[in-house]
Amino acid sequence: MNAGLKILAGVAVLSGFVVQTWQQAPKSQLPQFTKEGRLIRPRGYEEWVMVGASTGLSYAEPQTKPAAGAPPGMFHNIYLQPWAYRYVMEHGAFPENAMFVMTFYEPSRKSNPARFGFYEGDRIPGFEVHLKRKDVDTSGWGFYGFGSDTTSTSVKLPGELACYTCHAKEAAFDNAFVQFYPAIRERLLGKADKDSVRS
Amino acid sequence: MNAGLKILAGVAVLSGFVVQTWQQAPKSQLPQFTKEGRLIRPRGYEEWVMVGASTGLSYAEPQTKPAAGAPPGMFHNIYLQPWAYRYVMEHGAFPENAMFVMTFYEPSRKSNPARFGFYEGDRIPGFEVHLKRKDVDTSGWGFYGFGSDTTSTSVKLPGELACYTCHAKEAAFDNAFVQFYPAIRERLLGKADKDSVRS
Repeated sequence: MNAGLKILAGVAVLSGFVVQTWQQAPKSQLPQFTKEGRLIRPRGYEEWVMVGASTGLSYAEPQTKPAAGAPPGMFHNIYLQPWAYRYVMEHGAFPENAMFVMTFYEPSRKSNPARFGFYEGDRIPGFEVHLKRKDVDTSGWGFYGFGSDTTSTSVKLPGELACYTCHAKEAAFDNAFVQFYPAIRERLLGKADKDSVRS
Repeated sequence: MNAGLKILAGVAVLSGFVVQTWQQAPKSQLPQFTKEGRLIRPRGYEEWVMVGASTGLSYAEPQTKPAAGAPPGMFHNIYLQPWAYRYVMEHGAFPENAMFVMTFYEPSRKSNPARFGFYEGDRIPGFEVHLKRKDVDTSGWGFYGFGSDTTSTSVKLPGELACYTCHAKEAAFDNAFVQFYPAIRERLLGKADKDSVRS
């Protein structure tokens, strides 16, 4: 094998590695754990794929009816690792280590030129994680919570919490509320949202 | 130079290329034009960085007050190329060829287990683009619109339209409504949103 071929081989190996990292998960998008099994706070999720936003979404009936023009409740953004998003769109299922991150923003409406409607105001420092991983919970998915401490780690929230039973019962696909995520909903449920209300 | 060194050199060149594509824009994230100067419909923007969502945001006073519990108007998601997002966060300014894509979703509220609030329902096929590029408009930014035809191209919308004057006057930074985009707002305006309303 001459030097030119060896260079080509080197390039081929490196190219193969690059392709591999797109098919598998880049380490920066995978969950990391402490040696005690606590989930280390994910970073960089603002650049992941935002699969669905919502306002004031609640799984409990409200105590009182909202007043006319009242703020819509907090904005939620749901992020999924780019690698996992592509896996879902290609294979029609969630891969092990898929991880949803849910972030929160106060609704805001006062910055010019907005005269009507709401946008995402101040960020709430904490966020929640929903991780698909067999070894963390019998349901195959674990919930984790992170507060304002950016160095924090989280234990898996106890499997007795209502989030687990509600997700098991109500999720449209594999414990995940894909009914709320437009592109994933179209891919996994194969249908449009029938409940959209004209604005 | 022996074969091993040549392989290392080949790898270094390729690695350099990879680093380069992250600092400059990958072609897949750059605007593409027809030879007549029409913007070719961008693809893959659902995987770009979602910089801010809003509901019913309007720059005109509403004709009538919304009724209690009324749908909040359409969801808007604003996407920016990952390369441009990183440039903004690093340099504090928008690079040439930065491109915002605004998508639209009907508000929806009927899928279980949601009892309150709204999530993103059916996608509206079209979207709007706001492109920073000196050679398309004297303001330095051009607006484009795309409909349901996925093979479509768009002329730059005429500079006399209200969107240009409104963005020039009301944008908090360089013709872009960064006041509505949490992470970019924090970076470019150096402040929290003072107008958030408690939910």
